[in-house]
Amino acid sequence: MKTTEQVLELVQGFQPVREESVPLSRAFGRVLSKEILSPEDLPGFPRTSVDGYAIKAKDSFGATESLPALLAIVGEVGMGHIPAMTVAAGQAVKISTGGMVPRGADGVVMVEYCHLMDQTTLEVSRAISPQENVIQPDDDFKKGAPVLQKGWKLRPQDVGVLAGLGVTEVPVYRKPRVAILSTGDEVIPIHEKPEPGQVRDINTYTLSAFSLQQGAEPVPLGLCRDDFEPLRNMVVKGLETADTVWISGGSSVGTRDLTLKVFESIDDTELLVHGISISPGKPTILARRGATAIFGLPGHTASAMVVAEVFLAPFLAALGGNGKRAFSENARNRVSAMLSRNIESASGRDDFIRVRLIRKGEQWIAEPIFGKSGLISTLVEADGLLRIDRNTEGLYQGQEVEVMVFTSAKGDRI
Amino acid sequence: MKTTEQVLELVQGFQPVREESVPLSRAFGRVLSKEILSPEDLPGFPRTSVDGYAIKAKDSFGATESLPALLAIVGEVGMGHIPAMTVAAGQAVKISTGGMVPRGADGVVMVEYCHLMDQTTLEVSRAISPQENVIQPDDDFKKGAPVLQKGWKLRPQDVGVLAGLGVTEVPVYRKPRVAILSTGDEVIPIHEKPEPGQVRDINTYTLSAFSLQQGAEPVPLGLCRDDFEPLRNMVVKGLETADTVWISGGSSVGTRDLTLKVFESIDDTELLVHGISISPGKPTILARRGATAIFGLPGHTASAMVVAEVFLAPFLAALGGNGKRAFSENARNRVSAMLSRNIESASGRDDFIRVRLIRKGEQWIAEPIFGKSGLISTLVEADGLLRIDRNTEGLYQGQEVEVMVFTSAKGDRI
Repeated sequence: MKTTEQVLELVQGFQPVREESVPLSRAFGRVLSKEILSPEDLPGFPRTSVDGYAIKAKDSFGATESLPALLAIVGEVGMGHIPAMTVAAGQAVKISTGGMVPRGADGVVMVEYCHLMDQTTLEVSRAISPQENVIQPDDDFKKGAPVLQKGWKLRPQDVGVLAGLGVTEVPVYRKPRVAILSTGDEVIPIHEKPEPGQVRDINTYTLSAFSLQQGAEPVPLGLCRDDFEPLRNMVVKGLETADTVWISGGSSVGTRDLTLKVFESIDDTELLVHGISISPGKPTILARRGATAIFGLPGHTASAMVVAEVFLAPFLAALGGNGKRAFSENARNRVSAMLSRNIESASGRDDFIRVRLIRKGEQWIAEPIFGKSGLISTLVEADGLLRIDRNTEGLYQGQEVEVMVFTSAKGDRI
Repeated sequence: MKTTEQVLELVQGFQPVREESVPLSRAFGRVLSKEILSPEDLPGFPRTSVDGYAIKAKDSFGATESLPALLAIVGEVGMGHIPAMTVAAGQAVKISTGGMVPRGADGVVMVEYCHLMDQTTLEVSRAISPQENVIQPDDDFKKGAPVLQKGWKLRPQDVGVLAGLGVTEVPVYRKPRVAILSTGDEVIPIHEKPEPGQVRDINTYTLSAFSLQQGAEPVPLGLCRDDFEPLRNMVVKGLETADTVWISGGSSVGTRDLTLKVFESIDDTELLVHGISISPGKPTILARRGATAIFGLPGHTASAMVVAEVFLAPFLAALGGNGKRAFSENARNRVSAMLSRNIESASGRDDFIRVRLIRKGEQWIAEPIFGKSGLISTLVEADGLLRIDRNTEGLYQGQEVEVMVFTSAKGDRI
């Protein structure tokens, strides 16, 4: 029986999957497999950030509304072109936001502080300092400078920067492929009508959605009876087609033993975890075959989801190479809340309690949802999970707790 | 010039797009267009949540380790089948987790409290109460009971519940289609090498990724010169093919005027917003044609992203029908932090400041990132945005602030 921390260390020790290259238009949410250095200076030319007039800054020194500087307008910068003119002392050139600052000019005075006396004479009513409103050729990125780190998951603005730098093909980690199979003689396909004693295959769908959420690619292998040969064949198929194999089902002692026997029957397979001191989720098995992790997950969906949130999310992050986390990836899935009532907890195991989060003024209240184990409705009602550490005998009403939040967002932690 | 609140009210007033039906395997992250009622009782039969023996609870009353109850084992429940036997007083039937509790039994005693004296005689060392460890036929959901609300975005466990109920086709809102076009004579396709004065098309990629992030479908229409006819043609094409049209570019006064002229030239178009009292993002235009919103966004990517985070995210949520938000959708994109330094702010407009979030002990520190406007690197360095209200003259070092967090997750708010 291993602790939460021991299992976390094990799952985070798995190496990332291979790399691939994707077009920039499909790179959002993907994890960089190489550091990106700037291939050039950006923007690459002196660029103005305002609408106005390019001038020599010192021509504006001392200018005020009551004593404006007078300048001769000698042209206009065309967008997207190198301006032909050179700005001499006493001259001004009209320029729009994003335009290239012409030679000779070292600042742009905003149109708000300009007044046309006639077609060729400009009154400037405010002094600018040298380089004011001018973006230098390497202000955004200098050629060779680091832009984005290996292991970073791309946000919209990161995709934008890559566009700006002309990175049309992006080196990323492949999406980890997750083979998912459900066992249990009582489990039937979802389009069938269950007889008494039968249940539909909830776990394939829950775990497939969870894989998508973590930025991985589910490969559902279907249902498997609780028999050695078929189960072994499906696990072998999973090992051949995917980067990790998840077997769910086997809530009963018999199925757990069967899963274990299958693991042991496959060459070069090493059993890493046989039970975790958590509740729910205790009967979790983890084996390793080469670089591939094989998980035996609890059959109860609620238990499987706890194991998924706690262990499979960081496991898929490791597999997907997502080493550098954005602030958001760690913190946004955690929320501070005040506990609505006392909760007892057995020591010696970490308890994960489903909670509802309710806003009360400035504060989030975490309200535990109790219910028979094996119910999925409590998971649907829940906004997140609360961990009670194994060294704690419980939590008190009014205590500040941290809630791991459930989400519908995709690619949320990987 | 409109305020943040006025514009938010306008964008949230747009009606959801039409509905469609998707197979359950593709429903994760989608928004329900109808309330889901339970078509049947779940699990539909009395089911045990433990491995053990089904008995009459009162046969265990008073049982202790020193004085166990003795019962006759009369069979075993096969998984997925209706047990043939009926449990009489003094009898016990072996059962695995998930098995159907046989007639006559009204509780299941866990295997941990059972001891086989011989093949047919069971010692039970603990009393159970009636229905202990038994899930009733309608414990998860009663036939006709509400399961998930219209407007709810599906999480993995919600997909699981639908699987359990046999909902193989799910009624959802279509993904809103977003026509995106970039204007500006200086903007070139990203695979081209810019001459001095030219820049690559950052905004198409940033806004496409942002649309994906919000659960929408980007339809990039490409680049457009700053000329009336081509721009008008592209806007018309956008109106024909998408649920909303976003024109970015036009940082300069001239292009803004052009966009406005195009909007006015299209029949039945009503101008709703001409400028917002925010910084950056002030020169934003919004028009409505029937049910379709047409946005004129700032050309600077950093400004466009602020407008996107503040207005386009809730706009797409409205368009996508995501009325019922999970806890997470509102709260997880906000984080409390302590401000690292004073920030001044002009009154009369809401300022949105890029910040870095740094962990210091138990506390997040928000560190403002200042830089010339028009830089995209500051957006890449930032973890989120901080709003300074227009009625405030600034914020103080050490003040508690709320940060809107950037993310790489998909479908994050819609």
